Amino acid sequence: MANEQGLKIAVIGGGSSYTPELVEGFILHHAELPVRELWLVDIEPGQRKLNIVGNLAKRMVEKSGLPIEIHLTLDRREAIKGADFVSTQMRVGMLDARGRDESIPLKYGVIGQETTGPGGMMKALRTIPVLLDICRDIEELAPNAWLLNFTNPAGMVTEAILKYSNVKSIGLCNAPIGLIKQTSAKYGVEADRIYAEFVGLNHLHWITRIDVSGEDKLDEMLADTASYSAKNVPAREWNPEFLQSLHALPSYYLKYFYMTDAMLEEQLESLQKGGNRAEVVKRVEEELFELYNDPELKDKPKQLEQRGGAFYSEAAVNLMRSLYNGTNDIQTLNVANQGIIEFLPDDASIEVNCVVTKTGPLPLQLTKVPPMAVGLIHAVKTYERLAIDAAVTGDRGLAIQALAHHPLVPSVEVAIQMLDEMLEANKEYLPQFFTESTANA
Amino acid sequence: MANEQGLKIAVIGGGSSYTPELVEGFILHHAELPVRELWLVDIEPGQRKLNIVGNLAKRMVEKSGLPIEIHLTLDRREAIKGADFVSTQMRVGMLDARGRDESIPLKYGVIGQETTGPGGMMKALRTIPVLLDICRDIEELAPNAWLLNFTNPAGMVTEAILKYSNVKSIGLCNAPIGLIKQTSAKYGVEADRIYAEFVGLNHLHWITRIDVSGEDKLDEMLADTASYSAKNVPAREWNPEFLQSLHALPSYYLKYFYMTDAMLEEQLESLQKGGNRAEVVKRVEEELFELYNDPELKDKPKQLEQRGGAFYSEAAVNLMRSLYNGTNDIQTLNVANQGIIEFLPDDASIEVNCVVTKTGPLPLQLTKVPPMAVGLIHAVKTYERLAIDAAVTGDRGLAIQALAHHPLVPSVEVAIQMLDEMLEANKEYLPQFFTESTANA
Amino acid sequence: MANEQGLKIAVIGGGSSYTPELVEGFILHHAELPVRELWLVDIEPGQRKLNIVGNLAKRMVEKSGLPIEIHLTLDRREAIKGADFVSTQMRVGMLDARGRDESIPLKYGVIGQETTGPGGMMKALRTIPVLLDICRDIEELAPNAWLLNFTNPAGMVTEAILKYSNVKSIGLCNAPIGLIKQTSAKYGVEADRIYAEFVGLNHLHWITRIDVSGEDKLDEMLADTASYSAKNVPAREWNPEFLQSLHALPSYYLKYFYMTDAMLEEQLESLQKGGNRAEVVKRVEEELFELYNDPELKDKPKQLEQRGGAFYSEAAVNLMRSLYNGTNDIQTLNVANQGIIEFLPDDASIEVNCVVTKTGPLPLQLTKVPPMAVGLIHAVKTYERLAIDAAVTGDRGLAIQALAHHPLVPSVEVAIQMLDEMLEANKEYLPQFFTESTANA
Amino acid sequence: MANEQGLKIAVIGGGSSYTPELVEGFILHHAELPVRELWLVDIEPGQRKLNIVGNLAKRMVEKSGLPIEIHLTLDRREAIKGADFVSTQMRVGMLDARGRDESIPLKYGVIGQETTGPGGMMKALRTIPVLLDICRDIEELAPNAWLLNFTNPAGMVTEAILKYSNVKSIGLCNAPIGLIKQTSAKYGVEADRIYAEFVGLNHLHWITRIDVSGEDKLDEMLADTASYSAKNVPAREWNPEFLQSLHALPSYYLKYFYMTDAMLEEQLESLQKGGNRAEVVKRVEEELFELYNDPELKDKPKQLEQRGGAFYSEAAVNLMRSLYNGTNDIQTLNVANQGIIEFLPDDASIEVNCVVTKTGPLPLQLTKVPPMAVGLIHAVKTYERLAIDAAVTGDRGLAIQALAHHPLVPSVEVAIQMLDEMLEANKEYLPQFFTESTANA
Repeated sequence: MANEQGLKIAVIGGGSSYTPELVEGFILHHAELPVRELWLVDIEPGQRKLNIVGNLAKRMVEKSGLPIEIHLTLDRREAIKGADFVSTQMRVGMLDARGRDESIPLKYGVIGQETTGPGGMMKALRTIPVLLDICRDIEELAPNAWLLNFTNPAGMVTEAILKYSNVKSIGLCNAPIGLIKQTSAKYGVEADRIYAEFVGLNHLHWITRIDVSGEDKLDEMLADTASYSAKNVPAREWNPEFLQSLHALPSYYLKYFYMTDAMLEEQLESLQKGGNRAEVVKRVEEELFELYNDPELKDKPKQLEQRGGAFYSEAAVNLMRSLYNGTNDIQTLNVANQGIIEFLPDDASIEVNCVVTKTGPLPLQLTKVPPMAVGLIHAVKTYERLAIDAAVTGDRGLAIQALAHHPLVPSVEVAIQMLDEMLEANKEYLPQFFTESTANA
Repeated sequence: MANEQGLKIAVIGGGSSYTPELVEGFILHHAELPVRELWLVDIEPGQRKLNIVGNLAKRMVEKSGLPIEIHLTLDRREAIKGADFVSTQMRVGMLDARGRDESIPLKYGVIGQETTGPGGMMKALRTIPVLLDICRDIEELAPNAWLLNFTNPAGMVTEAILKYSNVKSIGLCNAPIGLIKQTSAKYGVEADRIYAEFVGLNHLHWITRIDVSGEDKLDEMLADTASYSAKNVPAREWNPEFLQSLHALPSYYLKYFYMTDAMLEEQLESLQKGGNRAEVVKRVEEELFELYNDPELKDKPKQLEQRGGAFYSEAAVNLMRSLYNGTNDIQTLNVANQGIIEFLPDDASIEVNCVVTKTGPLPLQLTKVPPMAVGLIHAVKTYERLAIDAAVTGDRGLAIQALAHHPLVPSVEVAIQMLDEMLEANKEYLPQFFTESTANA
Repeated sequence: MANEQGLKIAVIGGGSSYTPELVEGFILHHAELPVRELWLVDIEPGQRKLNIVGNLAKRMVEKSGLPIEIHLTLDRREAIKGADFVSTQMRVGMLDARGRDESIPLKYGVIGQETTGPGGMMKALRTIPVLLDICRDIEELAPNAWLLNFTNPAGMVTEAILKYSNVKSIGLCNAPIGLIKQTSAKYGVEADRIYAEFVGLNHLHWITRIDVSGEDKLDEMLADTASYSAKNVPAREWNPEFLQSLHALPSYYLKYFYMTDAMLEEQLESLQKGGNRAEVVKRVEEELFELYNDPELKDKPKQLEQRGGAFYSEAAVNLMRSLYNGTNDIQTLNVANQGIIEFLPDDASIEVNCVVTKTGPLPLQLTKVPPMAVGLIHAVKTYERLAIDAAVTGDRGLAIQALAHHPLVPSVEVAIQMLDEMLEANKEYLPQFFTESTANA
Repeated sequence: MANEQGLKIAVIGGGSSYTPELVEGFILHHAELPVRELWLVDIEPGQRKLNIVGNLAKRMVEKSGLPIEIHLTLDRREAIKGADFVSTQMRVGMLDARGRDESIPLKYGVIGQETTGPGGMMKALRTIPVLLDICRDIEELAPNAWLLNFTNPAGMVTEAILKYSNVKSIGLCNAPIGLIKQTSAKYGVEADRIYAEFVGLNHLHWITRIDVSGEDKLDEMLADTASYSAKNVPAREWNPEFLQSLHALPSYYLKYFYMTDAMLEEQLESLQKGGNRAEVVKRVEEELFELYNDPELKDKPKQLEQRGGAFYSEAAVNLMRSLYNGTNDIQTLNVANQGIIEFLPDDASIEVNCVVTKTGPLPLQLTKVPPMAVGLIHAVKTYERLAIDAAVTGDRGLAIQALAHHPLVPSVEVAIQMLDEMLEANKEYLPQFFTESTANA
């Protein structure tokens, strides 16, 4: 990070509707994070969105008066070359693929969700090879760059990169920062007076301590069975007796595991009502892009915050600032386990509090691992590791094993049938499974 | 084990239909295991069966001409006092309780099975306190005795004893010896030429190597998708593609996890046809006791082998012989983990190959742990540990957590409702959950 | 830490010459660490020094105009009662005992040093029981207090407290802060821009990274073979070839292990010249107390900084501030290992970078453990654990084992002879070894 | 191991004086270990000895009437090709190099011994590359062969092979079998009634249990302070108080660590008296070869048993028999740690009891690790790992680190000077340290 004239940042999937938030972050924090060049990259089918978002970004920068250059390009390698930070926010197969991820499992009576369960596995199979391709470019063209990965399933993607590339990578999710903000609002204290211990994996964590100005407020938070929620997961309340005896606050994604029956029912109803979550998001996105296209708009519109991914970009800018300045502050990140969760392999990705030093995040020891959670963490990580290796190798046997061992899949037979349908539906994005040598396996 | 006149053995639950097999074993192996006193103990409701079995035992011994004294008693302490070996084969609540264990979960769409799932948990809640009571007696009256535990769920009961008593205890199951015998028959070689590596827990193991005269026959065994079965688990065949990519032979109990939908269907059908497995066993037992009661019968009847528990007693006699003589041979036992499965706690019980030395079994390192299996092993062990602690403390919160985290239970809500019904149905045997302080919890 | 009127601090060994530095710290940082009561406690033989130091402290506070009350007392329990922080800086047996610790080993051709080797072990045997007595008082009278332990051997004392009491305790040494200050001066950057990774134990650490404004300066530091030194360890330079191939900067205390012959020679020469380090310190102390006694002195005198223990008090005040305010900054502390150094027991004390949260320090994962260092770390920790248990039990066999396994002791025979002489010389302070039951062991 | 006509065995260093014992073993156990071809290989300077020993072997076989072919050759590859077992018993640099290993350290006041300390390190530096060359041949020409390694330092050589080759290798030492035989004689029981638990490394073990017919006789063995000795280590008695408080029986090689001063004195005296151990062995060997050369000799001569290596060949034949037949008996072997000693790396070699199955040895869990021993085990293993890597790479810095961290070396300066002299003296056998690129390092 030596360029004296400022930093170069490449955003893969730059045409995303989240980009204005990121741009706002760069503008607000330019003093501590002197961005000079911001490269927004996208693929050809995304050209239109890239232009709309890119032009809004240019108007925002212009209004700010800061010396930030915005580059719009379809040439990923040009964008990556010499970058200080690369961030990814992409969707291989776009919202249509997401729609299928959400709907096919439901046919088999299985949760259909973007990151959790069979849907998440399909997303991983499509996405990991593309991310590893990007890593090859970074290894060659920007070997010192930090890769900030927002692309879901963020934990699995991060683990694949840790295992199969030499790129310095960190996975990011907006859930932890969301909890901090919720707690900050609830107690009326600054975020930096709150220490919440996150234990587990991306979209599969438990919070075991919430110190607010040094006092543990966990019990108070547990008493509120509707707290800690997000727009993209249905807002069922927790059973209070369960929550009390768990002694930990579960991620809202854990509702798919702890309330499987109710969540499934809700998804089926919602499907009948003519819309899975992918459809909803599609409509929201279209509305956003209409707004962005207004040449008078020179700021991030308020409506963006209603997307599920609120705070994503804030999390990204925070992390870049801390890495650039070596502020040694604490952030919740997806990094290699390295002994933190002692029963998981060293190279497994986990979601954990880290001190962000200039040479990277150092994870903090956990003080309380809920004994109830260890089995589920290990079961999901087992699936994740098998699925990652399936994504890299295109090995059908591994894919069967991954899906059959997912806690939400009821049997081997269902796993195999569902896999067959999902592989076929994603054929276009899964060349590794359809080359000659494996096609008839 | 110093008594020069021979060994004293106490069998708790001596009125069991299995006892004749045990007696046969003592007769056949008297040269290496000089049993002098065999004490069969039972509780009052079992007096009739005890007398029938006891008299058969006396006739068997008389026919053999060996100096073995058979004692029948309801006084457990007298039986245990000074014993060299204590074995347990009991059923707290008898077959009626088993019937409820098998039927109640089915109402909630959950597998109803004696040792696996909610049924197994209820059995553990009833049984563990009784076993720990027996341990208190052994600690006082026969501190050097070995306790051989056959009582199911054998893995959980063994772990409870390891954790909450000072008794030297080993858990035993007939499944491993069954596989060895099946393989021995298939290949026509002696059992001691076969080395099968068992990985996992009681009723939750995978076989990762089967060396027959030094050659690994695992692949051959995997090709036969119906091999390795038992009478007490429905004989569904494995999916061949799944088995090949698993690279390990799963226990037939794993069908409850890998074929949950089909097994559940079978149980529901079987229930409609008017009989759960408890009912079947009840009838078989009654027939056996009629046979036993025949004063002309002086041998173990052939029909006994058709019970699911074939080889149980052979396993027990083998183990006693090896402990008594220090033969250092290899047996598959349930013992403390002590680092063998590295992600489980040291005091967790596991099922593992051991060298049986005179001072006890020494577990053997595992050479291949299937990466697919680790999550499920950990998930089930997590449930087991919570359930054990619930059994000991009567803590309803722990019981909720145990059941809610069992991989076969679909949600927290189902767990709580089912638990409520099962606790109530077992009230008589669960004083720890119904004392004043916890009753209205 | 709830007293609204401010904090109560108890300093055991308050008559120490270091106290003025501590008082200065409380004055300088009163805004963030609102000390209301400072209790200086000492034992009767230390009364004179306590008065001198205490009066200086009162003059310093008076000059500052701050509302800090200074209490001088011989009543330890009164001082501890309700304290928020207790710090200890004491010397059981005073400088005379230290003199013996330094001189007896030399008779046997063994390093004679205050904290390292047989001398350190004797200090531990004398000190640990006294500290545990203090802990009993804290458990009773100030259960929420933090105990900041400066008393050497600080690592062993801290481990004894972690293992044998319920007091929240942290061990502190001035070496890490010293390195940071040295580096800060060398590169002209603020201390908070420096991240040095310390690996190992108290007085036995290696520095494996020194990031200065985000650049690793370790190689530069290694090139200067005289850097990282302190007044109380002779200033031999490191062999440059050794340092380069070690790839880590060793603590100056490691010279006793890596340059044993030269250090021994120096100690023997110094002894002949009529003075061990205890004698030197005695003279320095006397001069300091003369200064302190001057009623015109109202500030910490400059000369205090020439004592070996520079920055001790700064380290203490820093730590109290961070704990009180939950600043989450990084400090190098002696805490329970808890898996950080994976080959050491969880309850072993280690010296490690920690994030200081309001509920205590959270240790940071190590990024580079020098493979060369692991054996020596484990060897010294083995000695430490045996010596701690010897100190607590008075078991002569454990004391023999501890000393015989210390890397600086050449043989079992030397260990036993030296131990006999040292126990006898410290008889007065080692009642645990001289009660009737063990006296003639 | 499928050759129907019998086994092919290759002995590298076949001209060794130990060979007749091996041949005797093959003759005695031909029924269970049907050797058809025995290839004795040596290098050119050993041709005369090879012929003498080889001819004796032929006479021994002829007398036995068994169909064993003896082949004498200098062509290692021909000998290895298709072998079932390869055993090595060689001495790179022969007895002259051993003489230097023993005498150079003494100049620096350091123990001079064949396998322990600087002498052992030099032997490792000379030997490991040669063994790895042999492994390259085995990988190519006999990939299924077992390599039984007797070549000292056997632990380090075995670890090097485990780490840097794909050969299936087991390290062997005669010390464990020696203890069993001593105990067997003392108590008048068969060896298979004795179970001794060995904990540690080759030439650095502690015995923590000695069960004789099921009773632990450790305390009795500890009471005899002269027991467990061998001809090649001076027969000093242990300090009884030390032995009692250690609660374990140390290897006689541990005298170099626990009685360093006395052992050093003895070596210096012995040197003055005109003979190090290498000289003594040279004379014994010459006498043996004179005996072997007698054409009337057709049996292993009794005098061979007086060599330090008694039982070496018995150990080898035992191991081959067990591997060939899959007897699952217990032997003490040097194998990969794989978690047995939890603080050592998985690929470190340790000396441990194993069950010898047809597919290799499975190590047994340890039941008692003496807490006193862990530091020394780790310190020596640290040196070993650095020295192994130095042997493979020829990296002078690693060699310095290895020697400087050996517990018997008093300082870095001594380490560097001694290393310089020893490297120079062994120049002929250490090409890896004297290639151009490293010569002037």
